[in-house]
Amino acid sequence: MFTVILCRYHEIATKGENRRMFEEKLIENLKYHIRTLDNMVCSRVRGRIYIRRKDGQPFTEQEKNCFLKTLPRCSGLESFSPAMECEASMEGIVRLLKASAKLCFEPFFEKKSVVRFRIRARRSNKQFPLVSREIEIACATVIEEIFGEDRLKVDLVNPDISIGVEVRDENTLVYLNTYHGSGGLPTGSNGPVLALLSGGIDSPVACKMIMTRGCHVDYLTFHSYPYTPMESLYKVRKIAAELNRHQKPGTLYACNLSEIQKKIRDVCNPRFRTVLYRRMMMRIANMICRKKHLGAIVTGEAVGQVASQTVTNLGTIDLAAEYVMLRPLCGMDKIETIRRAEQLGTYDLSIVDLPDSCTVFAPSNPAVAAKPGQIRYEEELLGDFSGLLQEAFDTMEITVDKPEDELF
Amino acid sequence: MFTVILCRYHEIATKGENRRMFEEKLIENLKYHIRTLDNMVCSRVRGRIYIRRKDGQPFTEQEKNCFLKTLPRCSGLESFSPAMECEASMEGIVRLLKASAKLCFEPFFEKKSVVRFRIRARRSNKQFPLVSREIEIACATVIEEIFGEDRLKVDLVNPDISIGVEVRDENTLVYLNTYHGSGGLPTGSNGPVLALLSGGIDSPVACKMIMTRGCHVDYLTFHSYPYTPMESLYKVRKIAAELNRHQKPGTLYACNLSEIQKKIRDVCNPRFRTVLYRRMMMRIANMICRKKHLGAIVTGEAVGQVASQTVTNLGTIDLAAEYVMLRPLCGMDKIETIRRAEQLGTYDLSIVDLPDSCTVFAPSNPAVAAKPGQIRYEEELLGDFSGLLQEAFDTMEITVDKPEDELF
Repeated sequence: MFTVILCRYHEIATKGENRRMFEEKLIENLKYHIRTLDNMVCSRVRGRIYIRRKDGQPFTEQEKNCFLKTLPRCSGLESFSPAMECEASMEGIVRLLKASAKLCFEPFFEKKSVVRFRIRARRSNKQFPLVSREIEIACATVIEEIFGEDRLKVDLVNPDISIGVEVRDENTLVYLNTYHGSGGLPTGSNGPVLALLSGGIDSPVACKMIMTRGCHVDYLTFHSYPYTPMESLYKVRKIAAELNRHQKPGTLYACNLSEIQKKIRDVCNPRFRTVLYRRMMMRIANMICRKKHLGAIVTGEAVGQVASQTVTNLGTIDLAAEYVMLRPLCGMDKIETIRRAEQLGTYDLSIVDLPDSCTVFAPSNPAVAAKPGQIRYEEELLGDFSGLLQEAFDTMEITVDKPEDELF
Repeated sequence: MFTVILCRYHEIATKGENRRMFEEKLIENLKYHIRTLDNMVCSRVRGRIYIRRKDGQPFTEQEKNCFLKTLPRCSGLESFSPAMECEASMEGIVRLLKASAKLCFEPFFEKKSVVRFRIRARRSNKQFPLVSREIEIACATVIEEIFGEDRLKVDLVNPDISIGVEVRDENTLVYLNTYHGSGGLPTGSNGPVLALLSGGIDSPVACKMIMTRGCHVDYLTFHSYPYTPMESLYKVRKIAAELNRHQKPGTLYACNLSEIQKKIRDVCNPRFRTVLYRRMMMRIANMICRKKHLGAIVTGEAVGQVASQTVTNLGTIDLAAEYVMLRPLCGMDKIETIRRAEQLGTYDLSIVDLPDSCTVFAPSNPAVAAKPGQIRYEEELLGDFSGLLQEAFDTMEITVDKPEDELF
């Protein structure tokens, strides 16, 4: 019945000169997400993108399921609707409604004697003889003729069925359901970045948010084997695999920080350990960004969430980063971050309780305001640590993880 | 009828050693928000804060309205409920329900013949002889005895009235409605910051988000009089006033950037103007942060939203900032930012169309990837601009703006 996926975008539509580049990136993203279906074609027509079968036939159930599974992950896509198509004429619309209404309404009549419905019409074709309101009335009349007025009730606020009718220059689209995409901008329309990925709830959410701003994300994680178990790393690999459903797979760099941490433990004031670790992590991140031409370092830090995330400590950590730091969660409530992690599907992976690199040798009373001067003093005590950093960098494990059921 | 406001917090409850500090800051915030009521007292009892009248009498309608208006703005407060109180015994609860049920249910019986209700009980008092489920059944039975079973229906999912019962060691609280606070952490529990505030939709949202991470916010805005009208500044002052409903009023620094902008226009490649302006703005921000001991610079920048916000340009702008940059919206969709601005009440102020400092002399094709080296070259062309910066800094207008109806 459905022959087209109507794809809508919002933020791209606000773009001026570069709009075309964004639209083409979005098409590239869409194609990537539905890559298991090799019989589809995407076309761009004034502010909309259509996905159709090459042979113009209706989608199979399996194809429709693929769209519903994969397109919600597509950055830059605001929403999409499986739609039926006809010509841009009222006769065409009436014919289409008559042919399809039974199939659409029957599941509801099985449950209710009176079905509440509404028509929402939109007319971008300004030559069309009827205005939106008139199209709505004409369509509602057809529906009432088919089923009889007794069995139907128009309900604009809380209907059982909402039928969308979009009259365009080239055709008319009729659809029942609208699903959310990821919104924002298509991944790849902005520069690639490196995200610090831990086993926690926050950093995967930060990764997803930055993807929807157009950035492809590679990941950097730290473990402290043998002070943290290898399971901690496997957990992060699973999270990276899950995130990779949302973009062309990013690379995971897994760096063993334990030698550096031992040195810090042996030499520095314990209260500054976390901040010192974080600065070393930034330095490893700098090395990867330089080598791989990544333009920013993304973290899941939220101001004030833990002792290392006070304004003062963030400032001191920031000084070790040579790239712009992006912290999408810096102003976010923990409850909201959890809600986003649940929606993203990483929450259940993140809550598996395993030790984290940041907590190795962690003091009971970490400094909440480590000033840059104090930290420089502590780092002086370490002597030349460039060899330790290089060693950690050179021995990183590099993987590209994909979910086991890769395609969905 | 209501004698207590039951205040709940969430993120503070996850704090360890410092929890007490956060709770005291929250009380300070609560008191500030209800400062027009001088007959109230706040008390803290294991994980909850109570607001009561000093004389223990029920709140007046006017007092209740004040709570409903002001408490939703309170950072650190997760939610609150106007509540009735009785002793921690089933007899006390029954007596309270009998005394108050008519008043609670009557407005619903005026509209419906059968009212759907539910009881939600919570028992932090583990000595209490009934468990939560039993309390719920006992209370529902009382309600049914009062009104008769024919007029009531228990509905756990979508009730007309939901009655909360919280049995604690010291008392029992019974309430009908729960309202949202701002969540996060109480303003003042983290270091103060400086936010760049423009006339746009985004920066006020960024300010509010950072407030809810515990930071008090001062504001810095730029105008370009006579190239932008003074109305542009008045607009920002109104936005600052609106934001100041949410915290003890922050200071607005209004800096005239026009001399610097003229110099940039006359000397530098037009394509880099916006990035060069933004770097000058950061330098003024540095000067204020240094003088006023503010720990971070907050902006409403979102990656990829406009040409100056590509990853490369953000990185180049960032290099001019000497303080940690916090960009709460960096990963956010424009639609979501708009929704937040509407909720905050700044959207209608922001959409008033007035010219903005950033767009003065703006080129038609701004650079989307201004590399640090290119920008350093352009800034070399400016010669020594420290005098221009100092002049702009010294002539800033400094105001503390409050809404006209200050207290609500």
